[in-house]
Amino acid sequence: MTKDPPRKTIYRLSTYQRCLARLLANNVDTVSSEALAKAAGVKPTQLRKDLAYFGQFGTRGLGYNVSMLSAFLNEALGTSRLQPVILIGVGNLGAALLRYGGFQKEGFEIAAAFDLDPDSANARNVPFPIRSAREMPAFVREHHVKMAILAIPAISAQNVVNEAVDAGIQAILNFSPTVLQVPGHVIVNSVDLAVELENLSYFIR
Amino acid sequence: MTKDPPRKTIYRLSTYQRCLARLLANNVDTVSSEALAKAAGVKPTQLRKDLAYFGQFGTRGLGYNVSMLSAFLNEALGTSRLQPVILIGVGNLGAALLRYGGFQKEGFEIAAAFDLDPDSANARNVPFPIRSAREMPAFVREHHVKMAILAIPAISAQNVVNEAVDAGIQAILNFSPTVLQVPGHVIVNSVDLAVELENLSYFIR
Repeated sequence: MTKDPPRKTIYRLSTYQRCLARLLANNVDTVSSEALAKAAGVKPTQLRKDLAYFGQFGTRGLGYNVSMLSAFLNEALGTSRLQPVILIGVGNLGAALLRYGGFQKEGFEIAAAFDLDPDSANARNVPFPIRSAREMPAFVREHHVKMAILAIPAISAQNVVNEAVDAGIQAILNFSPTVLQVPGHVIVNSVDLAVELENLSYFIR
Repeated sequence: MTKDPPRKTIYRLSTYQRCLARLLANNVDTVSSEALAKAAGVKPTQLRKDLAYFGQFGTRGLGYNVSMLSAFLNEALGTSRLQPVILIGVGNLGAALLRYGGFQKEGFEIAAAFDLDPDSANARNVPFPIRSAREMPAFVREHHVKMAILAIPAISAQNVVNEAVDAGIQAILNFSPTVLQVPGHVIVNSVDLAVELENLSYFIR
């Protein structure tokens, strides 16, 4: 790796990985950079530039070996082993995420779910026992969890994040509609549904 | 407007708008670019550069008039009036989105929800009647809907999108884990939860 790849490159690696998984499932051995780029919705030059951050892939005239490139991307993305993740906040969205079966398939395992009010969260009929948020820091420490999904109201988000980061959380997928303040070693990806809609709304007029 | 602002600028306008709404609720009249930038998690130069795409705001030494800047951003983002949106796909995620009360507050109104199997979708106990996906194109045409939220399996996504775009949809918030092919006048924002997690996972190692 010559220098650190940009965040956008890492996002695109996930897309390439998706496309390769489909090819693997269809018993395709090799794929040209043109075909892989098209499936991923990018230009071939972009694909080659993204992969170049990680080394030399593919053979001129033959393209990429699908299973080798896929295995490499799994390793690079940290999805070659199940990665434990905690979920904090089991409201409507949190409960939907617990019911969503797709995480494990992608290499992520919900290790535990927490809520400030575990009794009413448990009543949401989710296939998962909900623990009290007070137990969260100890659980993170004991199980060396590094990733958290945050789906709590904006007003409580910063306090909960402070506790989670103190306990060892390094990466947060944030659904709370607020800007979180975190130390430099912690990374936050925010998904704000209303902001996504506003962004679309701007462009249709 | 001198030239088209980049996508990232439009995303940040939403964040500024959030911060301004909080200030308004607290009866704050003016805010400095430093304070607004800090609340939004950006540098003051970034804030000033973003706003400069739209004109001249603020008074040197006094800062921004909160209610005027907020009203301007509402207008720019198209959230000054309720924008109708349809939801396609009422599975776990789609049902959670219907239960999520936040859209209307942000200027979006779910005008209708569609599913390939409306009977089982209606059984999900959502506060909304679910229509058959066959009725979707006619509804979009009749009500001049421009925005759609897509929460269906990847395998059916492209066909449904083709129908929606033919009927007049111009902007899609896509939760289906697939790359959609759309004509140039249509904009797609994709939210892929597994990709967000993979991206975090890369950075914690």
